[in-house]
Amino acid sequence: MTFQLSEKTFKVPVDLFTENRHRLVDALKSKVPANSVVLLQGGVEKNRYNTDAADLPFRQESYFFWTFGVNESEFYGAIDVRSGGKTTLFAPRLDPSYAIWDGKINNEQFFKEKYAVDEVVFNDKTTTIAEKLKELSAKHVYLLRAENTDSGDVLAEPKFAGSGDFQLDTELLYKEMAELRVVKTEKEIGVMRYASKIASEAHRAAMKHMRPGLYEYQLESLFRHTSYYHGGCRHLAYTCIAATGCNGSVLHYGHANAPNDKFIKDGDMCLFDMGPEYNCYASDITTSFPSNGKFTEKQKIVYNAVLAANLAVLKAAKPGVRWTDMHILSEKVILEHLKQAGLIVGDIDKAVEARVGAVFMPHGLGHLIGLDVHDCGGYMGDATPRSTLPGLKSLRTTRTLMERMAITIEPGCYFIDFLLNEALADPKKSEFLVKSEIDKYRGSGGVRIEDDVIIRASGNENLSDLPRTVEEIENFMASGGEWTEKVIESRVSDFLSK
Amino acid sequence: MTFQLSEKTFKVPVDLFTENRHRLVDALKSKVPANSVVLLQGGVEKNRYNTDAADLPFRQESYFFWTFGVNESEFYGAIDVRSGGKTTLFAPRLDPSYAIWDGKINNEQFFKEKYAVDEVVFNDKTTTIAEKLKELSAKHVYLLRAENTDSGDVLAEPKFAGSGDFQLDTELLYKEMAELRVVKTEKEIGVMRYASKIASEAHRAAMKHMRPGLYEYQLESLFRHTSYYHGGCRHLAYTCIAATGCNGSVLHYGHANAPNDKFIKDGDMCLFDMGPEYNCYASDITTSFPSNGKFTEKQKIVYNAVLAANLAVLKAAKPGVRWTDMHILSEKVILEHLKQAGLIVGDIDKAVEARVGAVFMPHGLGHLIGLDVHDCGGYMGDATPRSTLPGLKSLRTTRTLMERMAITIEPGCYFIDFLLNEALADPKKSEFLVKSEIDKYRGSGGVRIEDDVIIRASGNENLSDLPRTVEEIENFMASGGEWTEKVIESRVSDFLSK
Repeated sequence: MTFQLSEKTFKVPVDLFTENRHRLVDALKSKVPANSVVLLQGGVEKNRYNTDAADLPFRQESYFFWTFGVNESEFYGAIDVRSGGKTTLFAPRLDPSYAIWDGKINNEQFFKEKYAVDEVVFNDKTTTIAEKLKELSAKHVYLLRAENTDSGDVLAEPKFAGSGDFQLDTELLYKEMAELRVVKTEKEIGVMRYASKIASEAHRAAMKHMRPGLYEYQLESLFRHTSYYHGGCRHLAYTCIAATGCNGSVLHYGHANAPNDKFIKDGDMCLFDMGPEYNCYASDITTSFPSNGKFTEKQKIVYNAVLAANLAVLKAAKPGVRWTDMHILSEKVILEHLKQAGLIVGDIDKAVEARVGAVFMPHGLGHLIGLDVHDCGGYMGDATPRSTLPGLKSLRTTRTLMERMAITIEPGCYFIDFLLNEALADPKKSEFLVKSEIDKYRGSGGVRIEDDVIIRASGNENLSDLPRTVEEIENFMASGGEWTEKVIESRVSDFLSK
Repeated sequence: MTFQLSEKTFKVPVDLFTENRHRLVDALKSKVPANSVVLLQGGVEKNRYNTDAADLPFRQESYFFWTFGVNESEFYGAIDVRSGGKTTLFAPRLDPSYAIWDGKINNEQFFKEKYAVDEVVFNDKTTTIAEKLKELSAKHVYLLRAENTDSGDVLAEPKFAGSGDFQLDTELLYKEMAELRVVKTEKEIGVMRYASKIASEAHRAAMKHMRPGLYEYQLESLFRHTSYYHGGCRHLAYTCIAATGCNGSVLHYGHANAPNDKFIKDGDMCLFDMGPEYNCYASDITTSFPSNGKFTEKQKIVYNAVLAANLAVLKAAKPGVRWTDMHILSEKVILEHLKQAGLIVGDIDKAVEARVGAVFMPHGLGHLIGLDVHDCGGYMGDATPRSTLPGLKSLRTTRTLMERMAITIEPGCYFIDFLLNEALADPKKSEFLVKSEIDKYRGSGGVRIEDDVIIRASGNENLSDLPRTVEEIENFMASGGEWTEKVIESRVSDFLSK
């Protein structure tokens, strides 16, 4: 066991990380010369600005965590490729005053057992790392320098004294590690299944608690509380989007300038995109439902369009299928529904070609998910280059699907004035749009239905567990009683005992 | 009004920040030449490592917030000293796609009204700032470069294109601004009073909910939820310490390696040091109470020692009194109580001189609090240099008190094996220690009682609102019913209507 917050939460097996290291060594061994060692640097705890305090505790960097499962700050880790993966962790030497302020100072043996590695060395001289690498007869040292294809930000390679004595490579590791992270092991899926289960329970709690007269942030608060109190999830995978009414059309609502602060009115549609992480593994789930528990006819039209797209993709998304095609499929299903409802006219294929789909769904259909909510590797492998077309350019991956990819399926349909006005002014798009009908939906926000899915040849595994049809949602919200502490506790406990 | 999360939360007046700027101009005008302008840079939103997501939304840098009250990322602000404080905000020019992803793009007039400043300029050229400074006839530009006397970290001065055309000063502003932040205005105290009230309600909720069989993190979760759901506090001022049993003796418990994960046993003493912030103003409150609601005799001895110290300091801490003397006073009161209980022998003054007080209370008595939980300026003004003696060296300020300083009073008494063993092995200390009696308390953790206090000549204002005597705590925890949503909502509403 490497991590379990309490007896009430999921037990993460330490061999999840051993297996990851074996996969890494297997991937590298034919590509690197003899005397090759991998060296990774973990995250370093930071305070707010120049202060000495932080809102939340340290959270490990994801590549390092994937490899070693280490929760602590200021670690390094080395893997000797030739030996088949002999692993050394470099732990910071703690000041004796740590015993007063922060607790027990653990020895090498403690960390060796906790993380099931071959050796633990206290990194108390600037030369510790180089000395140990020489002891391993390292000549070639592979360092991680990782881009992020969504943010463009770069994780810099580790610096260490004496690095000049080795042949350094900062290219190979990123390609290999990001690619390995794209396909999840069953052990990783186990943790993700739990994170999504907790997210589902917390969304259910929010749905049960919802009533007009509350403010959006109160449901965010309840979601965070349910995730932590019942699931042991101290961190969120991303900032909560608790949008209601017109805010549903602000795709990244909930940030500092739009802080989930709207009063919730009777008849508002809610769009809650929120997910906690457990032991660094993310969930990312969106629910859409009416604040009063009863869909209007217009709400049903939009909701059913999105649900149909979600289900169509869930069914069609198989190994070998290109994600871009799934995006187009979801656009088609949504546009077909809008056509049936009179908002759209004309040939749907031509509408898709004119990028009318992106007027209603400007974001990508979904993204890889794992240790990061938008996981790495989306533009590696057989990915086609990022499109420049509306909607398609926002795809975080264009790869073909593979078994045990974890991906979100999150079609949406929104009424965004900026995009509607732009489209209505563009003859290529406006010929498909029925302005008078569309105008009736302006200000109503939007709908998104997002599931976390494991791609399987035998049929996909949907990790979300939520009422999803109009009928299911209305019944769930109408059924008696609060979603009490006892109810949630027993549901989580049932899940863990399965 | 500059900020109010909802009708259910505190309304922060925009002139809080106007007043701060006036105070700054008043402090500077006799010290700077003509043609002097102050230029500050606000915080920049950051994601986790190289990813494109964050757990929590952006939180403004405290010096910038003190001056302008701006919640948004990537602002600069300038104050023309000569003109008496003409204020210009430089807002980032947002990409049109912001309207799709993040919401309405506001114009200059919006920000001018929101923050009650003279001018708002979009900072869309690299030369915008320098041009505007020249328009203000600036020759001398004062930039903030701020150390932190607790962490040693430095907030770097802003860089801007064309800065070479001005005489730059990075010394004066830190001294002046930190000193101004030390003494709070009544408007600032108003926000802090609210933050502490919310913290108190959330602590009450945790006390009411407490029962053996829960885990520590579940109470942290409830605390966070109560603060946000009822108080609109999305951020915490610091990482929650939800320690029970022996963990009470780990002063900064609750961090990533000791994540509030202990099972709470019958008879455990709880030490909960947790505080949210509202609109960036911090609270910092510690409660200590038995998990089962009933103090044992030994728990009473320790608790009453600490409570007596807390009350003695609250009474003695007046304008003109040096904080170091208050620290010594608290040590004396605690040691007197321990002597009465048979844990200590000998002359108390001599014991204090031998630093026996620091064996039981190794941390400082309290710290300035404001926009940062450990607020700036503790070693400015008439502060004596940081001591090298145990306990005293951990003081975050040694100043004499002034009216409207906001400071925490947080004496504690802990049984820390590391320190007890060290002291018992030191003849200078061990002569005061009764090992056989002290040993009976080992493993029991500790007690801390922390209030947020405004120093007033007319008698200090304690912002905390909690049951504090043994009797009050036992009665509060025994009285019927959960601390329901309705109860808390009406208590907060009563507070706001006062």
